[in-house]
Amino acid sequence: MSDNNLVISVDAMGGDNSPRVVVEGINIAHKNNKDINFLLFGDEVKVNAELKRFPQLKHCCTVVHTNEFVHNEDKPSQVIRNKNTSMYMAIDAVRQGNAMAVVSAGNTGALMAISKMILKTMHRLHRPAICTNIPHKDGMCVMLDLGANTECNAVNLAEFAIIGNILARHTLGIERPRIALLNIGAEEMKGRDEIHQAAKMIRNTHLDLNFIGYIEPHQIGEGYADVIVSDGFTGNIALKTMEGTAKLVARMLKKTIKHSIMAKIGLPFLLPVLWGMKKTMDPRKYNGAMFVGLNGLSVKSHGGTDALGFSYAVDNAAKLIRQNFVQTIREEVEHVDLDELSQEMLYDVY
Amino acid sequence: MSDNNLVISVDAMGGDNSPRVVVEGINIAHKNNKDINFLLFGDEVKVNAELKRFPQLKHCCTVVHTNEFVHNEDKPSQVIRNKNTSMYMAIDAVRQGNAMAVVSAGNTGALMAISKMILKTMHRLHRPAICTNIPHKDGMCVMLDLGANTECNAVNLAEFAIIGNILARHTLGIERPRIALLNIGAEEMKGRDEIHQAAKMIRNTHLDLNFIGYIEPHQIGEGYADVIVSDGFTGNIALKTMEGTAKLVARMLKKTIKHSIMAKIGLPFLLPVLWGMKKTMDPRKYNGAMFVGLNGLSVKSHGGTDALGFSYAVDNAAKLIRQNFVQTIREEVEHVDLDELSQEMLYDVY
Repeated sequence: MSDNNLVISVDAMGGDNSPRVVVEGINIAHKNNKDINFLLFGDEVKVNAELKRFPQLKHCCTVVHTNEFVHNEDKPSQVIRNKNTSMYMAIDAVRQGNAMAVVSAGNTGALMAISKMILKTMHRLHRPAICTNIPHKDGMCVMLDLGANTECNAVNLAEFAIIGNILARHTLGIERPRIALLNIGAEEMKGRDEIHQAAKMIRNTHLDLNFIGYIEPHQIGEGYADVIVSDGFTGNIALKTMEGTAKLVARMLKKTIKHSIMAKIGLPFLLPVLWGMKKTMDPRKYNGAMFVGLNGLSVKSHGGTDALGFSYAVDNAAKLIRQNFVQTIREEVEHVDLDELSQEMLYDVY
Repeated sequence: MSDNNLVISVDAMGGDNSPRVVVEGINIAHKNNKDINFLLFGDEVKVNAELKRFPQLKHCCTVVHTNEFVHNEDKPSQVIRNKNTSMYMAIDAVRQGNAMAVVSAGNTGALMAISKMILKTMHRLHRPAICTNIPHKDGMCVMLDLGANTECNAVNLAEFAIIGNILARHTLGIERPRIALLNIGAEEMKGRDEIHQAAKMIRNTHLDLNFIGYIEPHQIGEGYADVIVSDGFTGNIALKTMEGTAKLVARMLKKTIKHSIMAKIGLPFLLPVLWGMKKTMDPRKYNGAMFVGLNGLSVKSHGGTDALGFSYAVDNAAKLIRQNFVQTIREEVEHVDLDELSQEMLYDVY
């Protein structure tokens, strides 16, 4: 595939302050990805008004009009069959082959439900997952599921371990990723049944996975594992707790410095360091969660992000297209005997 | 109750590096609580060897010998009926009226199981919970359950809301605590079924609770709620994620400063501030999780804490004894129509 033909479809009406933030984000992403063409789905009057501010985007953006949108408060079941929403049409462009990935900052539940319905879950997999890379003290690790599946059984978790293994190898370049199940204790009997069963399954498969057992949340930052597997509820709780805690610490530091004259004297010397750290930990840099396990590339941007954050989601989609991400996962999953996992589960039940 | 009679029973063999850390912790706690007598259960040779280092503890510590102990890797079911362990005997001292609270840094699952069996769950409650106070940007909030109940139904969660309400009023002095259920979204349909049902129950009871709906983990630090309610698995995940993230941020700051000459110049000016912040956020200060909903006071210290951390757990137990904590909860729960909650649940099912 030539890099000259990259096309990304964008739900221009998704997220807070759309389409302004979306178009500004595309403009930032365009600077680093001159080879990408964008298909923008949304209210053409509004989208064109934003595009006018960036003449350099004229040749690479095509606007497709729609006057229906998915709102944040819409239930996925309400909007899933509405083929006229910007979100639906943007995803459908991937199915039709008009785009190689879709990016949306809209309603996560709806994006997952529509992506699943249109792009379909990959052959041999039971459930797709939402996945992202997060930083730890020595680098990055892959975390999944982050919210696609509120409840998961052991087979789902074991499948996520397999998908996570592929992701860590291909997106982080780790040869033999250490895979762990997120749990509330290291001991065999701690936590929920489905986690125990999943551990057993992963150990019992003939896959050559580097499974290291359970990881507790406070160990994630220590870099003990390269792939952190959990159900979507737990993963979402952990991810949002990280976000909130990092913010709280930064806020407390600011507040304490503000009240100390001594600290104010020393602060200018530390500013470059603090700025550098803020940059390293900037959640916008990690924006662009991947929906993995679908026959097409769907990338979710944080709904409340700004233009820079949205541009990172686009960058991420472009990177995954260039890595031939979907095809790579499909090929690896084809060689994995996932039925073995289900059998394992049946033995356990009967 | 005269303050001259406070007795706390201690599982001297619980936690890493026991009984050394335990005895050193008691010595620190003793300085601020001269009125407390301690009943120490454990290997008398080892415990007395440690006590010898602190002659000032001689008059306030009584050692009761036992040569059996609960280990960290013991399953609660294996040890629950062994009446000769230091943990069992320390808890039983509360039932017998020889102590007003028990403190242990041992196996959490075993401590909860034995406490529950010996002290019994309070009349009208279905399940006890593990609870602690955590900091947010403007103060503190109460969080429960933190690990006693891996799975919870809606009634359990609603009961925790009621207990949390009492706790926030009495331990934090908040007149009308804002109560929230921990969830992965603010919208009505987000998250798990039992959470939706619990929200409905809490709203429908005739209790005058200040229920504000769902809270997402990144909002905890913002101080949106005074009581955060979740099942024990989710609460444990969130708490340990906070711990890990705070540590990661501190570690990254340290590392970045180390590599910058400028930062090293400014650092001395900021040291008092950084030390102050480290002190504020020191997890040892928040050590001593309460088991609430039992007919007796059982306090869990972190297993890996040091003497200072253990002393905070003892301090906390002493504070709760002085507040007549168990009796207060019992009286309030007696006036709460918890059966109403169960009825609500039945209506929902049938």
